[in-house]
Amino acid sequence: MRTRVAEMLGVEFPICAFSHCRDVVAAVSNAGGFGILGAVAHGPKRLENELTWIEEQTGGKPYGVDLLLPPKYVGAEQGGIDARQVAELLPEDHRAFVDDILVRYGIAQPAEGQSPSMPGSGGGLNVSPKGYEPLLDVAFAHDIRLIASALGPPPPDLVERAHGHDVLVAALAGTTHHARRHAAAGVDLIVAQGTEAGGHTGEVATMVLVPEVVDAVAPTPVLAAGGIARGRQIAAALALGAEGVWCGSVWLTTEEAETPPVVKDKFLAASSSDTVRSRSMTGKPARMLHTAWTDEWDRPDSPEPLGMPLQTALIAEPQVRINQAASHPGAKAGELATYFVGQVVGSLDRVRPTRSVVLDMVEEFIDTIGQLEALVER
Amino acid sequence: MRTRVAEMLGVEFPICAFSHCRDVVAAVSNAGGFGILGAVAHGPKRLENELTWIEEQTGGKPYGVDLLLPPKYVGAEQGGIDARQVAELLPEDHRAFVDDILVRYGIAQPAEGQSPSMPGSGGGLNVSPKGYEPLLDVAFAHDIRLIASALGPPPPDLVERAHGHDVLVAALAGTTHHARRHAAAGVDLIVAQGTEAGGHTGEVATMVLVPEVVDAVAPTPVLAAGGIARGRQIAAALALGAEGVWCGSVWLTTEEAETPPVVKDKFLAASSSDTVRSRSMTGKPARMLHTAWTDEWDRPDSPEPLGMPLQTALIAEPQVRINQAASHPGAKAGELATYFVGQVVGSLDRVRPTRSVVLDMVEEFIDTIGQLEALVER
Repeated sequence: MRTRVAEMLGVEFPICAFSHCRDVVAAVSNAGGFGILGAVAHGPKRLENELTWIEEQTGGKPYGVDLLLPPKYVGAEQGGIDARQVAELLPEDHRAFVDDILVRYGIAQPAEGQSPSMPGSGGGLNVSPKGYEPLLDVAFAHDIRLIASALGPPPPDLVERAHGHDVLVAALAGTTHHARRHAAAGVDLIVAQGTEAGGHTGEVATMVLVPEVVDAVAPTPVLAAGGIARGRQIAAALALGAEGVWCGSVWLTTEEAETPPVVKDKFLAASSSDTVRSRSMTGKPARMLHTAWTDEWDRPDSPEPLGMPLQTALIAEPQVRINQAASHPGAKAGELATYFVGQVVGSLDRVRPTRSVVLDMVEEFIDTIGQLEALVER
Repeated sequence: MRTRVAEMLGVEFPICAFSHCRDVVAAVSNAGGFGILGAVAHGPKRLENELTWIEEQTGGKPYGVDLLLPPKYVGAEQGGIDARQVAELLPEDHRAFVDDILVRYGIAQPAEGQSPSMPGSGGGLNVSPKGYEPLLDVAFAHDIRLIASALGPPPPDLVERAHGHDVLVAALAGTTHHARRHAAAGVDLIVAQGTEAGGHTGEVATMVLVPEVVDAVAPTPVLAAGGIARGRQIAAALALGAEGVWCGSVWLTTEEAETPPVVKDKFLAASSSDTVRSRSMTGKPARMLHTAWTDEWDRPDSPEPLGMPLQTALIAEPQVRINQAASHPGAKAGELATYFVGQVVGSLDRVRPTRSVVLDMVEEFIDTIGQLEALVER
């Protein structure tokens, strides 16, 4: 699997593992892949600690950091807003709607004439320069090999700064149009992400998107994302012209993953038909497990989700409370529990060590190529 | 490409080409693939003529026939309804809605106090035993190699009758659940069709669906459908565990295709983001080009599409009128013109002979396998 991307990243297998969990990131890099820490919700101090920990665990093996750098978000015209401003912008109707959900699923007491509860300042996303610049300072002070932008083209000064530190820049694209824009912005790696992916995703499937993007941005190398959790799918991605893969969902049921237990159990039980694209978690369409939570936001009388980062601020604390309440066996709150995951959730049926996931992928990949060779030679 | 499916079908390349156009079917079989005539809207006499013509053109090369055999449709409890009964079941509101569209796009005159126009009896789908039994009689009297059910598991008597004639039975599945049901019904070939496919389609993408179905129905062989229009995608499908592919959209812009010129031009111009799953053509969700027609049916005040086969009966004649009116350059009717097509429409950018499409697929497939081999050997 020594593709051009493997050489650029300095790894044995061009398998990029996106995870919010530092243990997964370190385990993938230690297994010969490339771990990428999703850091959009981290504060600078936490990020500092985690990157230091990862570097200690991997003995300096290559890894990366992922941030959300959306071109459109609430407060963009003033370069971002702080947590207090975010809280002030949350409409009373939306807070009452979320409170009502918590009451009906046995998580909170009815408010009895009081105003809806005010969310705390936790759980905000650092999607503005004010928010992510301190994170970039931390990241560039560490020995990262790659920085990824999961929404929108990276700003020119980021590309310049990264290249000045000999750090590669990757950007996710859900359409060929976006991929061309990323390539024009000087991005080193384009991640073509199909609709079947977990998290923020477009509507075009990986099978169609990848060869289109490969042709559109050549010679910039492309990673395939969406629908990839095993070696057969890596072989398919490389057949489509990608030079590596970007996986997220498959790590959520590993031993190392910090996925809430109730959500992990739901993932293990779910089929590939059990996901939905919903704006209920971040305000932008993102694929997640279809649960009572996504249904509640899809009712004809539900409010429209807020823009980014307001929706996340609105629901972050309620989400923590839902997962806590859902941890009690039989709790009605369990119906609400959800998280970002792609359609590959149907193939996640047991908890495995992260290292085994990587090595099984590689083994099945090699077997698959052998089978394809035999078909042509016959 | 000598897979088990190629041997079962008796062809050089396990590339199944679904088309309503006999010229495409014959050209694919003559090029070493396997043509399949979509015959759901044919009368028995027309089907008789077309199968005879195909056999003359191909000199007896293998080919197949596809019908829609949905388990659920209007009139199922009485074994189907005739064209007069269908016409009587079309609500006045729906007819008025369609008439209004035709008026607003310059295709019809306002009705001025008259009732909405009554659709003709043409364009009905033969989805009930009453409708499809005469077609089966014609098909089994010919030298077909395969009969396919594009919706729902084939009835037991059909499987028995087909096997009695040494004819293979295929069935399309959009979920692993459906695939298992087909396998239990004795189907010889399962077509795992991803959401990116044109026509009736589910929500799970090919990249995820194919390996799931392969594992679920083994040892029954699987064809991959959805997102396949070139050799790279065939290689990906085989990497996923399929033993052949089923393609529909890619033939719609060939020289031989009878696609209305205005629709063909739209396909050539469209991107992979320009399709939508809509119930506006048959009553069941089907992927087609996103146009003013699909938008009109998606308005908040639009009526719900009717069940199968009523929706097709409602819109068949209007569709003919739309395509006729749209053939005049600059006509507003052109905004409405649409047809079933998958997300691969983005890669259809020139008119080619069907034979060239097949041979280019094979050439790119072989090149792709060579590139994959090199990756492993390095």
